[in-house]
Amino acid sequence: MSVIDEVTRELARLPGIGPRTATRLAFHLVRIPREEAVRLAGAIRTVAERVRRCVRCGNLTELEACEICVDPGRDRSTVCVVETPFEVHSIDRTGEYRGIFHVLGGRLSPLDGVGPDELNVASLLERVQGMGGEEVREVILATNPSVEGEATAVYLETELRPLGVRVTRLARGIPVGSDLEYVDGSTLAEALAGRRER
Amino acid sequence: MSVIDEVTRELARLPGIGPRTATRLAFHLVRIPREEAVRLAGAIRTVAERVRRCVRCGNLTELEACEICVDPGRDRSTVCVVETPFEVHSIDRTGEYRGIFHVLGGRLSPLDGVGPDELNVASLLERVQGMGGEEVREVILATNPSVEGEATAVYLETELRPLGVRVTRLARGIPVGSDLEYVDGSTLAEALAGRRER
Repeated sequence: MSVIDEVTRELARLPGIGPRTATRLAFHLVRIPREEAVRLAGAIRTVAERVRRCVRCGNLTELEACEICVDPGRDRSTVCVVETPFEVHSIDRTGEYRGIFHVLGGRLSPLDGVGPDELNVASLLERVQGMGGEEVREVILATNPSVEGEATAVYLETELRPLGVRVTRLARGIPVGSDLEYVDGSTLAEALAGRRER
Repeated sequence: MSVIDEVTRELARLPGIGPRTATRLAFHLVRIPREEAVRLAGAIRTVAERVRRCVRCGNLTELEACEICVDPGRDRSTVCVVETPFEVHSIDRTGEYRGIFHVLGGRLSPLDGVGPDELNVASLLERVQGMGGEEVREVILATNPSVEGEATAVYLETELRPLGVRVTRLARGIPVGSDLEYVDGSTLAEALAGRRER
């Protein structure tokens, strides 16, 4: 197998990259300046070797704790619970959230054998109980609006309520910039139910 | 800048990969087993460092001459002229072509300052004149069916004809599996003009 076939095969393993795109990318990599391809290879290697999980929240980091957990400007009384580090990134990028995070590492999925023990649930409950030195007053459940994400949120709510903490969910409604015509029925129903005075 | 931001930025330089896809790929790379990401990085680095141009035809190779040029089973009297190594790959994969190739390295584009001297035209004419030890009897012009690809083919034809070689073009017509309804007018016109008894 030629080295071009090899890089094509490796690229085709990436999500959303089919064999055709992989081939096109492989040929692109031999056309660009060598330094540019070497820099991409180096960045991929570095990210694979250096990135690990934050010991406090499960977010990605190159150190022991992530930059959000060590940031003294963060409000440590509010914890936003998400499924993966990708959502930490998405929420943090909005600039609207100043609290801290807790990454579950997935969602409940009994059919795939993913129960509470497979997720970072115990560590969440410990944090809320102040065992990590934090004084958590609100937990925002920001799991995905999928069936499994919903089930995960419901489960967490039953575990968290008895601890006397405020438990909230992200608002449901019409996405900004969308057209009512293209919004599905359940979203419309949620938007109606959650309507507000303005 | 974090190593995740860095790999995101490098990935976003690839063609067809926007910032969102790049971010998703970056987070994917930290989720998969480390060996897998390291293997991808290695394959990219290897392809960038080892692949070069075949001294005879301009195709990609890890050696001095490409595997097609050194293949004794190839018909050396037929040369298929293409713009880039990608087309060598596409045509060769059909398994229908047993001749050899010549890679121009682009197409004529006066507005971008690409004239015959910027392409591997001189070496093509030398090959056809037998200066490379080959006895070329047919040159298939397989440039792209774009305005610039067409202009390149027309130019090459005027250069090649006086050398007494047979000059052919890829057939134009309806793509296999397409629906007449969706075939554009000029393709239909070419398909009509090139119609054959069956």
